[in-house]
Amino acid sequence: MIIHANNPELKSWIDVEPNSDFPIQNIPFGVFLTKDDVITIGTRIGNQAIDLSALHQLGYFDGIDLHDDVFLQDSLNDFITLGKKTWRLVRNRISEIFRHDNSELRDNESQKEVVLFPIEEVEMQLPVIIGDYTDFYSSREHATNVGKLFRDPENALLPNWLHIPVGYHGRSSSIVPSGVAVKRPTGQTLPKSEKQPVFGPSKRVDFELETAFITTDANKLGDRIPVEEAEDYIFGMVLLNDWSARDIQAWEYVPLGPFLAKNFASSISCWVVTLDALEPFRCESPKQENPQPLPYLQQTGNHAFDINLEVIIQPENGNDSTICVSNFKYMYWTMSQQLAHHAVNGCKINAGDLMGSGTISGQTQDSFGSLLELTWGGQKPLELNNGEKRTFIEDNDTVIMRGYCQNGKVRIGFGEVSSKLLPADPFVK
Amino acid sequence: MIIHANNPELKSWIDVEPNSDFPIQNIPFGVFLTKDDVITIGTRIGNQAIDLSALHQLGYFDGIDLHDDVFLQDSLNDFITLGKKTWRLVRNRISEIFRHDNSELRDNESQKEVVLFPIEEVEMQLPVIIGDYTDFYSSREHATNVGKLFRDPENALLPNWLHIPVGYHGRSSSIVPSGVAVKRPTGQTLPKSEKQPVFGPSKRVDFELETAFITTDANKLGDRIPVEEAEDYIFGMVLLNDWSARDIQAWEYVPLGPFLAKNFASSISCWVVTLDALEPFRCESPKQENPQPLPYLQQTGNHAFDINLEVIIQPENGNDSTICVSNFKYMYWTMSQQLAHHAVNGCKINAGDLMGSGTISGQTQDSFGSLLELTWGGQKPLELNNGEKRTFIEDNDTVIMRGYCQNGKVRIGFGEVSSKLLPADPFVK
Repeated sequence: MIIHANNPELKSWIDVEPNSDFPIQNIPFGVFLTKDDVITIGTRIGNQAIDLSALHQLGYFDGIDLHDDVFLQDSLNDFITLGKKTWRLVRNRISEIFRHDNSELRDNESQKEVVLFPIEEVEMQLPVIIGDYTDFYSSREHATNVGKLFRDPENALLPNWLHIPVGYHGRSSSIVPSGVAVKRPTGQTLPKSEKQPVFGPSKRVDFELETAFITTDANKLGDRIPVEEAEDYIFGMVLLNDWSARDIQAWEYVPLGPFLAKNFASSISCWVVTLDALEPFRCESPKQENPQPLPYLQQTGNHAFDINLEVIIQPENGNDSTICVSNFKYMYWTMSQQLAHHAVNGCKINAGDLMGSGTISGQTQDSFGSLLELTWGGQKPLELNNGEKRTFIEDNDTVIMRGYCQNGKVRIGFGEVSSKLLPADPFVK
Repeated sequence: MIIHANNPELKSWIDVEPNSDFPIQNIPFGVFLTKDDVITIGTRIGNQAIDLSALHQLGYFDGIDLHDDVFLQDSLNDFITLGKKTWRLVRNRISEIFRHDNSELRDNESQKEVVLFPIEEVEMQLPVIIGDYTDFYSSREHATNVGKLFRDPENALLPNWLHIPVGYHGRSSSIVPSGVAVKRPTGQTLPKSEKQPVFGPSKRVDFELETAFITTDANKLGDRIPVEEAEDYIFGMVLLNDWSARDIQAWEYVPLGPFLAKNFASSISCWVVTLDALEPFRCESPKQENPQPLPYLQQTGNHAFDINLEVIIQPENGNDSTICVSNFKYMYWTMSQQLAHHAVNGCKINAGDLMGSGTISGQTQDSFGSLLELTWGGQKPLELNNGEKRTFIEDNDTVIMRGYCQNGKVRIGFGEVSSKLLPADPFVK
């Protein structure tokens, strides 16, 4: 399958800086509000936001079966339901419109005025209305680290972990786009020194470095999704900061899993990078030989993606400190395995569902995807560039996650998911 | 607070059988499809479905601030966002329209033709678009039984249980209305005789007897809901059968909680009974003295409701067998405590969110709200009226749950949630 828009030789007539996440080979999808208060679906090349509803109105998508207001929406959901063939047609067409040698829009100043907006003049929105949010737990290194810290160091990985892409349901209503500040949550905890739980702001607010994929309608209730078809139902990926309150989590999570420790907020990046755009970065995932997964999870070919990831802490009045450098390819379970497992019992998968990878940790200390692991449960504080120490996130720290693929020919990136932790509400009772 | 529609002396000009769940004092809300393929919000008195959009068009809600198409909807969500005052005004108005001594509609045959439909001629729908679904675990007896069966009989109740209304997130996409059949799920299990997991249809499909409440917009992300205000944000209640696959659950649920064991289907009853209609049935909940809950969960007054519940199994070619008789008032944690806890960390609560009670079990053997408990993990089969035995649900069994309040003056009921278990898909791999 040749995807024309992925040709690394392509150049756009829009200026793109060499290290941009958004060359003409990316063409992610998102939703933004213009200065004129119009909400629209758009894409991005370099530092230009591109209004797809304006392009559609000007006839640039003629010949593709799209209804008139497909891009004049406050979410990608309707567009996503059109399916992979349409996503690909639209992305290829956008690629053609913006090729350096295509003069149609390039030389039409009045059309460019209604189509192009400097990125700093638009306000990015949550890209999808998320019906259901599932979070997996698919990094072997992360599951092992958490097992050592929360449970038994000798039997850190639970017996089911190598057989099941373990996952659980999260809260859709509390998912916010990059840029939205998050308030430190309040709740019950059981400090080591106490016999009875106490109430107050969490003292152990943490990030979790994750990616997430967004699905389209994939099945009817009761029907499965074969693992070899699963990628057809994945629209694209975003970065996800799965905010976590470790002290609340430790007290609440047995036996039904994390709840208030997670559902105060989850932050995602705003541009959805399509699986098509990531195609050149497919790579092998860790071998699954001992044990082999059950047949419904077995797949051939490469289903991991080589995506560089990093986490930065920006204290209120200090420089950025990069505290984690990881890669999505470390994940033991692939997205297609996660999706096939999710639906093996007939669970209905809808357009706009979000599925988090789980915290992405590598084998080295600097690749651990949470402060829980990086500071080993708070025992080994990190030193930031400004000399301050961190065991967990402090008030007014901003957590920034970035992700990008690079292969010497082209760089495809996600931009960032950035959010500031605000202090808790004044303590009442 | 006197709620006029609750007056037990009221009678309707619509015939209501003595044992009906739907006297004029109930006035639940639901969504149905008429024979003419019109979808509308409606209510029910006796065996008549009442089209509220038709009533509105005829001017019967004049004077109440409602937009024109508030009832011409495929879900209650927009109506619910209008808030408790509006729900009450509408319910009181409906009560007036159908009082035996109000001739306006009673004597207008042509109007009645567009407003009233025999209940068997309409097709009930899911009443709300459920944004997020949370399931609590608030019956002390159920949590104790499960602890004995799944974990340690000596320490059945976990240390956090008496401090926290434990809950977890469920899957919205798989919630179906009463009447929709459910397919036996397939998945991974670890039979006792095996060292490696096996794949196939679940052998231990169970019901869970629950109620659920539906909320309105209650807070902004980051804000709490005080326990004393929480009931203002509860629109009403339904019955919930939280289908469970016990063998899948046992293998998957540590450490992040149940996932595929639950999300293949959850069934709810179709008429939402308002908290206003349940007002006469308030009663005390179990004492919370040892330990006392933390202040944010402490409340005064009665916040439990005396709702009789029962579960019936109907085999394919047999008579009904009532296998469980329970009551909602047994719940240790109240709905207002559940909601206040859910939002204590700032989690956003939206209109149309559904919150399950958790399995409702009483102290006696016949009041246990699941087969897991009734057959004590499959060790003590139940005998049905037709002589057949059951440890778990068999193919083509129908599970029916009913709920009603009764105080000698009036009976307010939920109707039923009924669903048949279909065989699994033919086994492939």
